Amino acid sequence: MVLSDLDGILVANADFYDAHERRDFDRMCAVWEHSDRATCVHPGWPILRGWDAVRDSWERILNGPGRNQFITTNVSVEQHGEIAWVTLDENLMQGARTGTVAATNMFGRSSTGWKLILHHGSPVMAG
Amino acid sequence: MVLSDLDGILVANADFYDAHERRDFDRMCAVWEHSDRATCVHPGWPILRGWDAVRDSWERILNGPGRNQFITTNVSVEQHGEIAWVTLDENLMQGARTGTVAATNMFGRSSTGWKLILHHGSPVMAG
Repeated sequence: MVLSDLDGILVANADFYDAHERRDFDRMCAVWEHSDRATCVHPGWPILRGWDAVRDSWERILNGPGRNQFITTNVSVEQHGEIAWVTLDENLMQGARTGTVAATNMFGRSSTGWKLILHHGSPVMAG
Repeated sequence: MVLSDLDGILVANADFYDAHERRDFDRMCAVWEHSDRATCVHPGWPILRGWDAVRDSWERILNGPGRNQFITTNVSVEQHGEIAWVTLDENLMQGARTGTVAATNMFGRSSTGWKLILHHGSPVMAG
């Protein structure tokens, strides 16, 4: 089955959150483009650039104590050729705590599907 | 003079911070692409989508009491065809307070230069 661009982007985006929720490091690695332009800003973190730095952060996060459930809402997809970007709200449930993170996820089209090249998450202040 | 892509992207990026520092609403409007895909996440804010919502936020911010000086560092530029994205640290000085915001700025190439299509800023937590 060949996915449409929109379907492929949404599948890649969903894989990212699924890998995080399941704490599946191999799957998280498969979501990302392994390149120098891979860039990640976790909420409150400084910018991480390059796949090595991004991979290390996910290894630590997915091996850490946090257990997150993501409900994604307010999803919008834009595409221009081989670049796509998704903006959305990550509604997080971590135990009894909840919060919203505004996220930008950029993807690049590869021969094996859309790969995450940039993730930027920022906490939305209540009120 | 015709600017190279890299120069054009950096000029557009610098214009964005200059317009903010000078509180020049018209210049801020000229920086942005006036389209439905214009998207802005101010630090701590929810996602604003579409030029009308983005413009209104800048009108309020630039008419508000805040006076910000930006020193941009750690600047990285990526480009793929007509889409470019810059990640950087915004080192903010607002009176005696300082802070760092991690920013992603996406630009689209138009007949009149590179226009901002997405700004996402997130406060970097100290330590």
